[in-house]
Amino acid sequence: MALLVEKTSSGREYKVKDMSQADFGRLEIELAEVEMPGLVSCCTEFGPSQPLKGARITGSLHMTIQTAVLIETLTALGAEVRWCSCNIFSTQDHAAAAIARDSAAVFAWKGETLQEYWWCTERALDWGPGGGPDLIVDDGGDATLLIHEGVKAEEIFAKTGQVPDPSSTDNPEFQIVLSIIKDGLQVDPKKYHKMKERLVGVSEETTTGVKRLYQMQETGALLFPAINVNDSVTKSKFDNLYGCRHSLPDGLMRATDVMIAGKVAVICGYGDVGKGCAAAMKTAGARVIVTEIDPICALQALMEGLQVLTLEDVVSEADIFCTTTGNKDIIMVDHMRKMKNNAIVCNIGHFDNEIDMQGLETFPGVKRITIKPQTDRWVFPDTKSGIIVLAEGRLMNLGCATGHPSFVMSCSFTNQHLDEKVAALHLGKLGARLTKLTKDQSDYVSIPIEGPYKPGHYRPFELVWVLVEECEILVF
Amino acid sequence: MALLVEKTSSGREYKVKDMSQADFGRLEIELAEVEMPGLVSCCTEFGPSQPLKGARITGSLHMTIQTAVLIETLTALGAEVRWCSCNIFSTQDHAAAAIARDSAAVFAWKGETLQEYWWCTERALDWGPGGGPDLIVDDGGDATLLIHEGVKAEEIFAKTGQVPDPSSTDNPEFQIVLSIIKDGLQVDPKKYHKMKERLVGVSEETTTGVKRLYQMQETGALLFPAINVNDSVTKSKFDNLYGCRHSLPDGLMRATDVMIAGKVAVICGYGDVGKGCAAAMKTAGARVIVTEIDPICALQALMEGLQVLTLEDVVSEADIFCTTTGNKDIIMVDHMRKMKNNAIVCNIGHFDNEIDMQGLETFPGVKRITIKPQTDRWVFPDTKSGIIVLAEGRLMNLGCATGHPSFVMSCSFTNQHLDEKVAALHLGKLGARLTKLTKDQSDYVSIPIEGPYKPGHYRPFELVWVLVEECEILVF
Amino acid sequence: MALLVEKTSSGREYKVKDMSQADFGRLEIELAEVEMPGLVSCCTEFGPSQPLKGARITGSLHMTIQTAVLIETLTALGAEVRWCSCNIFSTQDHAAAAIARDSAAVFAWKGETLQEYWWCTERALDWGPGGGPDLIVDDGGDATLLIHEGVKAEEIFAKTGQVPDPSSTDNPEFQIVLSIIKDGLQVDPKKYHKMKERLVGVSEETTTGVKRLYQMQETGALLFPAINVNDSVTKSKFDNLYGCRHSLPDGLMRATDVMIAGKVAVICGYGDVGKGCAAAMKTAGARVIVTEIDPICALQALMEGLQVLTLEDVVSEADIFCTTTGNKDIIMVDHMRKMKNNAIVCNIGHFDNEIDMQGLETFPGVKRITIKPQTDRWVFPDTKSGIIVLAEGRLMNLGCATGHPSFVMSCSFTNQHLDEKVAALHLGKLGARLTKLTKDQSDYVSIPIEGPYKPGHYRPFELVWVLVEECEILVF
Amino acid sequence: MALLVEKTSSGREYKVKDMSQADFGRLEIELAEVEMPGLVSCCTEFGPSQPLKGARITGSLHMTIQTAVLIETLTALGAEVRWCSCNIFSTQDHAAAAIARDSAAVFAWKGETLQEYWWCTERALDWGPGGGPDLIVDDGGDATLLIHEGVKAEEIFAKTGQVPDPSSTDNPEFQIVLSIIKDGLQVDPKKYHKMKERLVGVSEETTTGVKRLYQMQETGALLFPAINVNDSVTKSKFDNLYGCRHSLPDGLMRATDVMIAGKVAVICGYGDVGKGCAAAMKTAGARVIVTEIDPICALQALMEGLQVLTLEDVVSEADIFCTTTGNKDIIMVDHMRKMKNNAIVCNIGHFDNEIDMQGLETFPGVKRITIKPQTDRWVFPDTKSGIIVLAEGRLMNLGCATGHPSFVMSCSFTNQHLDEKVAALHLGKLGARLTKLTKDQSDYVSIPIEGPYKPGHYRPFELVWVLVEECEILVF
Repeated sequence: MALLVEKTSSGREYKVKDMSQADFGRLEIELAEVEMPGLVSCCTEFGPSQPLKGARITGSLHMTIQTAVLIETLTALGAEVRWCSCNIFSTQDHAAAAIARDSAAVFAWKGETLQEYWWCTERALDWGPGGGPDLIVDDGGDATLLIHEGVKAEEIFAKTGQVPDPSSTDNPEFQIVLSIIKDGLQVDPKKYHKMKERLVGVSEETTTGVKRLYQMQETGALLFPAINVNDSVTKSKFDNLYGCRHSLPDGLMRATDVMIAGKVAVICGYGDVGKGCAAAMKTAGARVIVTEIDPICALQALMEGLQVLTLEDVVSEADIFCTTTGNKDIIMVDHMRKMKNNAIVCNIGHFDNEIDMQGLETFPGVKRITIKPQTDRWVFPDTKSGIIVLAEGRLMNLGCATGHPSFVMSCSFTNQHLDEKVAALHLGKLGARLTKLTKDQSDYVSIPIEGPYKPGHYRPFELVWVLVEECEILVF
Repeated sequence: MALLVEKTSSGREYKVKDMSQADFGRLEIELAEVEMPGLVSCCTEFGPSQPLKGARITGSLHMTIQTAVLIETLTALGAEVRWCSCNIFSTQDHAAAAIARDSAAVFAWKGETLQEYWWCTERALDWGPGGGPDLIVDDGGDATLLIHEGVKAEEIFAKTGQVPDPSSTDNPEFQIVLSIIKDGLQVDPKKYHKMKERLVGVSEETTTGVKRLYQMQETGALLFPAINVNDSVTKSKFDNLYGCRHSLPDGLMRATDVMIAGKVAVICGYGDVGKGCAAAMKTAGARVIVTEIDPICALQALMEGLQVLTLEDVVSEADIFCTTTGNKDIIMVDHMRKMKNNAIVCNIGHFDNEIDMQGLETFPGVKRITIKPQTDRWVFPDTKSGIIVLAEGRLMNLGCATGHPSFVMSCSFTNQHLDEKVAALHLGKLGARLTKLTKDQSDYVSIPIEGPYKPGHYRPFELVWVLVEECEILVF
Repeated sequence: MALLVEKTSSGREYKVKDMSQADFGRLEIELAEVEMPGLVSCCTEFGPSQPLKGARITGSLHMTIQTAVLIETLTALGAEVRWCSCNIFSTQDHAAAAIARDSAAVFAWKGETLQEYWWCTERALDWGPGGGPDLIVDDGGDATLLIHEGVKAEEIFAKTGQVPDPSSTDNPEFQIVLSIIKDGLQVDPKKYHKMKERLVGVSEETTTGVKRLYQMQETGALLFPAINVNDSVTKSKFDNLYGCRHSLPDGLMRATDVMIAGKVAVICGYGDVGKGCAAAMKTAGARVIVTEIDPICALQALMEGLQVLTLEDVVSEADIFCTTTGNKDIIMVDHMRKMKNNAIVCNIGHFDNEIDMQGLETFPGVKRITIKPQTDRWVFPDTKSGIIVLAEGRLMNLGCATGHPSFVMSCSFTNQHLDEKVAALHLGKLGARLTKLTKDQSDYVSIPIEGPYKPGHYRPFELVWVLVEECEILVF
Repeated sequence: MALLVEKTSSGREYKVKDMSQADFGRLEIELAEVEMPGLVSCCTEFGPSQPLKGARITGSLHMTIQTAVLIETLTALGAEVRWCSCNIFSTQDHAAAAIARDSAAVFAWKGETLQEYWWCTERALDWGPGGGPDLIVDDGGDATLLIHEGVKAEEIFAKTGQVPDPSSTDNPEFQIVLSIIKDGLQVDPKKYHKMKERLVGVSEETTTGVKRLYQMQETGALLFPAINVNDSVTKSKFDNLYGCRHSLPDGLMRATDVMIAGKVAVICGYGDVGKGCAAAMKTAGARVIVTEIDPICALQALMEGLQVLTLEDVVSEADIFCTTTGNKDIIMVDHMRKMKNNAIVCNIGHFDNEIDMQGLETFPGVKRITIKPQTDRWVFPDTKSGIIVLAEGRLMNLGCATGHPSFVMSCSFTNQHLDEKVAALHLGKLGARLTKLTKDQSDYVSIPIEGPYKPGHYRPFELVWVLVEECEILVF
């Protein structure tokens, strides 16, 4: 795919797979809106006052139908938007086409190469000479990373005249990042500094990105404010838990059509994502075995009747392996060699390094048979036994299915609001009726009648949000 | 699609969508074999003795990957095979291509018209001048129906010279059946009689077909022996129950991406299929309401914590409606008009007449918006509210997903064996170890050490099987 | 306890533990009536016509609160009743007291010796010189057994003058049976013949008793008609399944207070009782392992995510063992010796011979520590490790708790009616609303609008019932 | 029961129901120890160093078998202990007897009057002239309350000479508290000041007590340090959740023998306790309806397939009502009047004021029928319809059953340790094997190999614990 930006008749930039899918995308966006009461009510409540009027927003987040509704919520509130995906397989091409045609600058397609991926990211961040976006909606932190690495390189260049050297790293993906920055430097040596200057802040959607941000904050490297959206309850305890409970079996079924009942499923990690995955496998009739490092999570698994063992204990008897840890090196090629024929290996945790894809790809004599896109059978030369790897080790729910369903993403995406309000916006759709405290009860338990109902340590991100609200006042 | 038979280089007839998908089909067939230990062990155990040597078998059964493994099991045992699907949407085109290229005469593609459907059925039954098949593998009874109607018409023709008149019926599908028979009559007025003469018997896979057979048997209209495969435990209590538990959510997800958690799902009917569907919806986090006519099934639903109401009670508050009754006129257009916007309506029971598709299609002013194949939004003119109908009211798991998974179909398809043996063949794959009765225990409970373990009334079909075994001896 | 019959002021015979508990029993009977709509509606519907007027009924069935409601239903329909329990631990003394005081002749208390048990059985059968009961309600077949053995002994005595010799058998319980018959012979050498003559038939409640009856029928030894109540759907699929799902954890909790979550529970047998037990343990958070001889049941367990292994595989790692097989010699003393300290061993299947109690009791050096009645810790001399045996190996739900709850027993006990009617009588209590077939639908599926909805092979016992209805006409 | 302190032969004070139950209590304590690996390993690890040597500990916490193991852990670590229960129905008399005989001063029995209850509390706090305990283990905060009220009264007395006037309050329980303080004042006007002086701090076990403490802390009224044990994960997410999941059905079954399957259960509140209760009812086959004030919890309930309505919506159709809110006035007498006959009303939340017991008791013409202790049927005069109230509105799992099982209480009670260590101590018992981070993984996710694995805001109580550890160093 030639990396050339295209333009709509109105002059908006884009690069998508197939613009003819825009009508199909529009139909599915309309279906999704019915399932996303949180975002829709944002439009209704805040649309008239245009709080994002004039704001430039860059998103690096799976370019799905659900994200399309988010993007159009942002534009309905007055923002201009540029978007890329945060995963090479997660774009739904019809969603990208509809948004590119109707609402925002989109650079995303299903099945990007890493080269293409970072080109898209850079395109989404580039708002022209006046600097970058006012806000970034990041998922996994790649947009944030690019700016930080860009600023670092510009500083070195300013001091020493040196440009980044891609060959200075073994990591092939990081080589690409450095190339892009190097190219940028040669056009405008203050490009990323200008972005940093303009940027009010980033909101980060997911555990992995949040961890990166905390690490940068600790070392003083963080260049701009960041909102931890991930840890709001209606995100981490909903999207991670209920979203994965839904989308793990969805991905497995679409990729392999395998019967889950009767199988042994190993879930590596029993955090929120792992809990959702384990629940899905258990209720589908699998026998679930959990691996954990944290004794509390391990004890929770046991209380649900799940067995807690190490991967080594079970590697040769299980049928399905799914990583959910947010850590790397969970399933190594030596594990994979010991698995049963046609064992399924997949990752729903974070990056593809939860699974040792590099070890697998470079294993001497290994043979890759692509059953269909995102479903590969890898055959080891000695045993002639094969394993089935989904989405090349990347997020299988997005690579092999369509990610989380609209309703739960509406909870996640509405989280610029207060947490409890997000939940409240979604109750009506499900026919629920809340009970109201009496004044007397309210006094008795020291909880305001209108909430918040949770103690403060449940709502860590709110202070940050207040800060950003102030920023908004300053900026827009 | 022009209805012309094509031929492979070896001269075998076929008609499929796209022969270039044969390689893809072959890869998925190989995956499925690993999941179908029952069929594979039939090949191992009986392949050498070629018990079906020389037998002609016609199948009218969803032309999926799993069926492909069945077909190749039959050919491995010595049979010649001709095949069509028993549902216009259920063919997997890559499966059909692989079988057409490698193993048997296939006439099937996804998205047949009714005209095409019956043409395929007739092709699969037509083995040339020497009569029809020795055995039929039927699912729903359409192949059986065609022969019975053909014989009936030939008898009338022989007596009166009258050919069938398609305009004598209002039912558009039956008009097609009559046309085909009429055309056949003009070529060979004994065509269906010859089929009847040659035929040893039919094995019927599903509840609906079995009901038809019992009705014919009662009125004396049944022309040849029939094996009720459906009521073997490893079929009805596995395929219907665990298969649908797997494939209902699969179909819903692929067709609509809707979040099931939090929704209200109405399951019409609580037989084996309904039990599987209700379990799937409940464990996915839906609130399930059951409709039933049978008080025993109703009480079973209640014991599982499900609410039992009438469709009228809940039609305006539920999100998902699924029919599983094996009866007709379950969800009528007047029900659909009262549903919530974007309520999902689907059928996993038997024919599309569980849902009043005709009433919907002919409703004045109704507008059909096809989101994607097998997913339509129907908008009523007065309310502007739409409902989403899957697979045009036909079996949604086959129309919108890929039907039951291989493992459970292996149980169903291996049922020319004794029931308990079928189960036994599948235990090893799941790592189970059976306990063995001691002699003393065996005497105590009057159950042979090697089984059968179930009382006789659990195994109604075996006598028929014995009959057919004798037939085999006679024929092959 | 001296075995002397007592009499109420009105002259009715009884022998119970403590008549002062009658008021408490009456209160619980009144509570139970609200939960037993089937029995209550029998009284309402049939009370006025007094169909059992003048009938003598003997019951040998757990003398619980639920049975008390059954007894008073029988008396409300006109019968005279004498009752004993069918298990030495299953009597609820307050229920026995209330019935003895108010309604029927009761001979039962919790914690009978075997000697006492058979004395009670004989008392319940003895209606005086005119012969025995018209009908027997049997559970496990002990009343039926006593008559058969009595008749056999009387025949031998008539021919040879020989009386039964208790020392002719090693089985201590059967020695008691022979003694009782011997004593009876000396009073009236035609006592059991007279019983046989008068008896219209027996209705048998449970799997074990039904098996005995079928065995007797096959050998021609069965002396009178028998109704298989057990195999009506609203009995075996309700009482066995849902009843045990309720009462297994109830018994475990009352006996041991042990936390079920996190434990490994082995369920021996996966029939209806085993399915209920496994479901209870799984949903309580245990990891469940099933042992089975029948491959179909084994495959069902696997489809629910349960592991299927042999007892030997898991004996040293599990925490809870429960037998549900209806067979003997399931858990032997050699198994028990290998168990973890404080492993719990119990039986909910049939007789105490599912567990090798004799092997345990006679194991050299074993020490029994009674924690409380029906909860014993048995310590092996070599390991100093102990296991906890519930209810001395007898039915733990009746021994350690109060048996099945009223609602499910109402289904079981109402089964002199047709099966579907039994279910229908219980729906209102749970707020259910049945759907009604239209005439057109009824024709389409060939099922009468008013039922029966199940095919004939679902209703094996009905013919027998018709027979008995005729008998009733003759007798009463 | 005359309120006279008794003494053991060794001179230790006690007041229990029946000392002859001490042997039975000892047997059950020994069983419980096997289930409480956390406490047992505390003895093993810390017993030799006697860290509590010389410390006086007063406990006000349900005097159950599990608490007995806690008490003996404290004494094994060197402490002297005085104990009372924190609930009038929660004492297990055999546990109290065993502890009184063997280990500590106990003042507790099942079925105390409120007068007796506060007498016991005062006895447990009274260590003689030298002041009170060094540490309090409180559950619900009654011991803490008594000291605070005592100090307040002593201050007023010191300033004004006024003693507390019981008639100054309408609350009958608080009248008793004031009486006791008044009596104390007349003996030693500095009694509670001395207690306050000596006291190092209180550890509080439960949500209600913790709320009271935070309220006191906010107003500056808190007189001594307090450890929030409740909010450690291995307490609130285990005891509240898994404990109640176990003990709600246990209590229901023992109190009423009612079949849960098929019933409609209303759970008021969906916090940790409510989640456990709802899960228990759902898995037992009930249909569960939740009432909530907090939209986040409401949305969680919906995601599990539960209906969220107000109590008013469902009051007349449900069968079981259970309060879990930690708030008051949840089920009022006007609700109870509208309930179905024999609806069950119970509380597992905190105090009996979740249910309007006062409104019920004083309702004109209401009739109380005690079925058995802790199970009352209340009949309203107009409708003649009755409801069944468990444990007089107090914690039904302790009143009607034996409270949480040992294993989960071991988690709760071991929480003077760090949270993750508590979990780790319990894994071995359940056969789990933890995975260990590699150095490389540890760096990647910035989590130490040995933990803690949770972020800081998961462990709020640890700082307090550090504080108390220092105090210990000072004191002992």
